[in-house]
Amino acid sequence: MNKLILVTNDDSIHAKGIKELISVAKTFGDVIVVAPEKPQSGMGHAITISNPLRIQKYEGFDDVVAYACSGTPVDCVKIAIFEILKRKPDLLLSGINHGENSSTNVLYSGTMSAAIEGAMESIPSIGFSLADFDSDADFEATKSISSQIIKDVILNGLPKKTCLNVNVPKLSLKEIKGIKVCTQAHAYWDDKFDSRLDQFGRPYYWLTGNFSDVDKRDDTDLHALKNGFASVVPTHFDLTNYKVLENLKYLEK
Amino acid sequence: MNKLILVTNDDSIHAKGIKELISVAKTFGDVIVVAPEKPQSGMGHAITISNPLRIQKYEGFDDVVAYACSGTPVDCVKIAIFEILKRKPDLLLSGINHGENSSTNVLYSGTMSAAIEGAMESIPSIGFSLADFDSDADFEATKSISSQIIKDVILNGLPKKTCLNVNVPKLSLKEIKGIKVCTQAHAYWDDKFDSRLDQFGRPYYWLTGNFSDVDKRDDTDLHALKNGFASVVPTHFDLTNYKVLENLKYLEK
Repeated sequence: MNKLILVTNDDSIHAKGIKELISVAKTFGDVIVVAPEKPQSGMGHAITISNPLRIQKYEGFDDVVAYACSGTPVDCVKIAIFEILKRKPDLLLSGINHGENSSTNVLYSGTMSAAIEGAMESIPSIGFSLADFDSDADFEATKSISSQIIKDVILNGLPKKTCLNVNVPKLSLKEIKGIKVCTQAHAYWDDKFDSRLDQFGRPYYWLTGNFSDVDKRDDTDLHALKNGFASVVPTHFDLTNYKVLENLKYLEK
Repeated sequence: MNKLILVTNDDSIHAKGIKELISVAKTFGDVIVVAPEKPQSGMGHAITISNPLRIQKYEGFDDVVAYACSGTPVDCVKIAIFEILKRKPDLLLSGINHGENSSTNVLYSGTMSAAIEGAMESIPSIGFSLADFDSDADFEATKSISSQIIKDVILNGLPKKTCLNVNVPKLSLKEIKGIKVCTQAHAYWDDKFDSRLDQFGRPYYWLTGNFSDVDKRDDTDLHALKNGFASVVPTHFDLTNYKVLENLKYLEK
């Protein structure tokens, strides 16, 4: 029987990246799309609990069944599994994101949170991102690399409770040196707020800032991307820092 | 010099839980509050990037300087550090959440995401939650336990890039058996959608479901809570599953 593949993203069902990912997914099985009706970048693992969700059939992908959902990327995964499909898909693909989701960006990323939600549901799940924010970005290299990785994952499965965070540098396929399996870099945003006044003289603030890579290790995703490789980080949802458990036992009373 | 303590939450600046946490925080230093103007439960690590943020002075805490922010809990932390304070506080306290944030709920929790954001900024950070959703819950036991933990953390600091996820069962202080340092349980939501029709006959969906503890380990936060202990999970933001890195090297091309 054909594999059932759920495709979602955070840039919305109208983004070029999801269309490109669908074209890859179709070569591996039957595709169903449940994606946000509006952009949901930066929504992290948010779920909608104080408002109801809406879904609407979307006809923009020819022969592929698709729904636009009013919620977040994680909502899309939940409503796809528990309401639309009434079963778990065999594979979950999220993206292709317009913009990098390397390093700690995985925490803010709706694209990756959808993949993590898939892993929580024991579905082999992969998030794909291209280091190019352009709405008309060239996804050809990312499609080729995605194809290779999906093929391997279908053949071999993924470790339990683990999804993949795949990032591709903004280079041609010829220029990309290969695929590296990496750790998540410890980088951070040096945030700034751009303060402005509205038409009534009241202040408002835009979140802005520079991304700062302070990680000196050479096995990180940022290191791989800077050196022309696509990065693959095995990503799980156990946030326990096991290394410090013993040191903190003194807190027990 | 007095410690500068930032207090935030996800239940909004109007919740009883943050008022109770402020009363504890005041015994340890100078408190500033930056908290969401509206409830932000389930917002996870979401940030506001497509809309500007607003902040407004809030006068509800007597002598404590407080701001209500239009954004998410993580937005509150960012705007507190980079716009309001223009410095990092010495300690970040988030909560006290009305409802448990144990196990994988840490990923959906705005309260814990604020603490994780603090850890990303190298600020000793603690999230507190009480296993009681009641808006008028009794926080006395949680306040006492929070006090003990804050005292220890101020004295000894926290391991780098690590915050604490503290959950307290709905019991009196006398009934609580103690504090346990735990791992994050591998539990999950068995989601359901409650489908209804609006006044025009169009369907809408409420996310609902039951929490399912499938973790057999006896060192988890859920295990501790079920057995009458408060749980403390050292929580970090490195989602790399290091254990499977080698096994996945075959993906490298």
